Amino acid sequence: MGIGNEPGPPIAIQGEQHMNKRRNIDAVVRGEFAAGNGLLNRRILLAGGLFAAGSAATIASAQSNDSVGANSPEWMKTPGRGFSGYGFPAKSQSKVQRDYPTGQVRPTTSSHTPLQFLEGTITPNGLHFERHHNGIPDIDADRHELAIHGLVSRPLAFSLDALLRYPMETHIRFIECSGNSGSYTSAQPSQSSAGAINGLLSCSEWTGVRLSTLLAETGVSPGAKWVIAEGADAAAMSRSIPLEKCLDDAVIALYQNGEAIRPEQGYPMRILLPGFEGNVSVKWLRRVKVTDAPVDSREETSHYTELMPDGKARQYMFPQEVKSAIIKPSFGMTMKGPGFYEISGLAWSGAGRISKVEVTADGGKTWALAALGDPVLPKALTRFRLAWKWDGQPAVLASRATDEKGATQPTRAAWAAQYAARQGYHFNGVQSWGVEADGTVKNVYI
Amino acid sequence: MGIGNEPGPPIAIQGEQHMNKRRNIDAVVRGEFAAGNGLLNRRILLAGGLFAAGSAATIASAQSNDSVGANSPEWMKTPGRGFSGYGFPAKSQSKVQRDYPTGQVRPTTSSHTPLQFLEGTITPNGLHFERHHNGIPDIDADRHELAIHGLVSRPLAFSLDALLRYPMETHIRFIECSGNSGSYTSAQPSQSSAGAINGLLSCSEWTGVRLSTLLAETGVSPGAKWVIAEGADAAAMSRSIPLEKCLDDAVIALYQNGEAIRPEQGYPMRILLPGFEGNVSVKWLRRVKVTDAPVDSREETSHYTELMPDGKARQYMFPQEVKSAIIKPSFGMTMKGPGFYEISGLAWSGAGRISKVEVTADGGKTWALAALGDPVLPKALTRFRLAWKWDGQPAVLASRATDEKGATQPTRAAWAAQYAARQGYHFNGVQSWGVEADGTVKNVYI
Repeated sequence: MGIGNEPGPPIAIQGEQHMNKRRNIDAVVRGEFAAGNGLLNRRILLAGGLFAAGSAATIASAQSNDSVGANSPEWMKTPGRGFSGYGFPAKSQSKVQRDYPTGQVRPTTSSHTPLQFLEGTITPNGLHFERHHNGIPDIDADRHELAIHGLVSRPLAFSLDALLRYPMETHIRFIECSGNSGSYTSAQPSQSSAGAINGLLSCSEWTGVRLSTLLAETGVSPGAKWVIAEGADAAAMSRSIPLEKCLDDAVIALYQNGEAIRPEQGYPMRILLPGFEGNVSVKWLRRVKVTDAPVDSREETSHYTELMPDGKARQYMFPQEVKSAIIKPSFGMTMKGPGFYEISGLAWSGAGRISKVEVTADGGKTWALAALGDPVLPKALTRFRLAWKWDGQPAVLASRATDEKGATQPTRAAWAAQYAARQGYHFNGVQSWGVEADGTVKNVYI
Repeated sequence: MGIGNEPGPPIAIQGEQHMNKRRNIDAVVRGEFAAGNGLLNRRILLAGGLFAAGSAATIASAQSNDSVGANSPEWMKTPGRGFSGYGFPAKSQSKVQRDYPTGQVRPTTSSHTPLQFLEGTITPNGLHFERHHNGIPDIDADRHELAIHGLVSRPLAFSLDALLRYPMETHIRFIECSGNSGSYTSAQPSQSSAGAINGLLSCSEWTGVRLSTLLAETGVSPGAKWVIAEGADAAAMSRSIPLEKCLDDAVIALYQNGEAIRPEQGYPMRILLPGFEGNVSVKWLRRVKVTDAPVDSREETSHYTELMPDGKARQYMFPQEVKSAIIKPSFGMTMKGPGFYEISGLAWSGAGRISKVEVTADGGKTWALAALGDPVLPKALTRFRLAWKWDGQPAVLASRATDEKGATQPTRAAWAAQYAARQGYHFNGVQSWGVEADGTVKNVYI
């Protein structure tokens, strides 16, 4: 196992090129393999000019010079539809939906972001994953207040209008449920889409008021160490949060990707704890009580604990650790014959920025560095990309991320060895996909 | 006129505070004015703890300790609604719509992003501004192709599937119509919302394939200097683009804020020319013809030219220059009495990053530096923020942005002096709002 070399800049192809395209590709490939089984150096992404083999169609220039007329597509022949107040995706995208089981006896508890249909890093608000504990409350924002009380000097209630006068901040942050990717604890790999496996994960631009700003208004009394956040849903969902986090980067979020936060995400307000397991970022936030100890709420005892090999459970393991997943290709996609493809995926860490993502195409024997999106933001999704020349033979792809604190994803086996069997929270082991000779993609364990 | 001083760190208010809140505020204000008429130093945003005066309500701690019961809001008493495949904003947000005139004899040509209801920098896809030249075509993506032809070695046609195999890039970029804010050429200030005035402006995370990558595939012949981009709408909207831009940061965009690009924005693909006037980023992109000269299309002669004082018109003035607008407060909002408020707005430049935004509350006599969002991205919207202690008297607010190339917004008069009367494209002069003693906000010229 080794890291791919990083040779110099790739061969740029510019201006008039009379060479045979096949020869161009071979020439570049000779110098640009970064790891085994066809992985190309990430810098090749800057050069381009090598990928069309087998995918773009040569056309006669004369044909493409036809003016618009009888042979034009029908949608150019009549005026299109007009304006709308609030737009929707194209009709053909109707399959791009959050994924949740229906018709079950037990109520469904979550819906997944369909990562396999998405690109980039931002999750559209309509597709942000959902996790409710007793449904989505229909809150009258004009009557909703956030009360901050307990170990404070001046208990205060903040209406939405009051909060809107405070200094705000805007940051792109991911939210991930601690149960995300829990199917990796199954004995057999789940043959499910990237979204079904990893889609309790979304990323938005959040805007709101720092909780520390509001706590400075109320004052915090001596002995205060924790905060209990309570939602205005019919579960009164409550979680305990260390005061230290509340005085750090915790935000009372009011806007999501520019618009008022969606009902599924806590309208009119939620607490947002960047990098912490999603459940703690309590939605429909109603009360923040400053205390000297955690409350051991229902969700902190019946759920969201980690069973250890000695039979004891760990509580309050908040941070989401460094993690990554290849999204393209993934289960449900079909490779269209040998040739060039881009491998892309997502990496993230609750500890800060992603520093590198390595990708293997030979099941972990050799690894190449992927290109990372620019800029890499802390506690946000980072898109990684790498070019791959698939030879049409079976291959096993996997990604392995490292964050700025130096933490690297463990193997699935090393991750599992830390816990009791079937403990499924906070899985962050290396994930892998098997590409079959017929182009289908399956979930495999390595 | 002068720039506000930048004193040291503000007085942080942490932990137990037994002082009278009023005294706290006065103490901080003494050291923290950054410019005249109540503008506070931007660093005060990091401290917080000063804003509630008059906005948050003191509550009895016992009252807020009530457990959930008879006095709880009705939405906590019954389970809320369940999951949905694709979510929508809260019902109370139904007023947050793109703004476009209806019932006119001449067809409406554009809809505006309602900036006055939004925060942060990302525009939700449903609210991205629209500009169509003959409606939105209903394209069958499976039959759509992008042809690249003209002065190339190998004319090629790219299906959507073909493009999806190419290396992609993801960037947050604004798009602004060159006619945005054109009402500033009227003799009297338009009493309209921030969105109606400045909302031909949106910002998204775009993902796609660099055009230079595809041009490396086709090869570019000697003598090539321009490219003609044509849309598959019923206007066959065509614009000429310098080849230099196409080989720089031009992208064939396929995804917008994570999901497939919306029909209004060019589904299944558009060209995106970061920093250029929006119209050139041709939607529903169908053909790219490499040429030796611009084509002088309808939209390059009947529109999108700048009439100069000597009666001649300038063509092909692509870049959107440095610009800013205060969004909060703005026309249609009402200040709720004297006290602390956050002023926030948007700044952007087609030349790159915003380097500073200055704000005045005294009609331009003194200016203070606003805090900028982090990170500041090139050719993207930047949110600026500044705290203001309004004394309840009439005040005139304005913002003035400078970009990393050193360009600063001119005054409205200096901008207008460059052009013939009523030339309305590429307005980037300083904008201002008047706050009246009764708290209403009006558009004013300074």
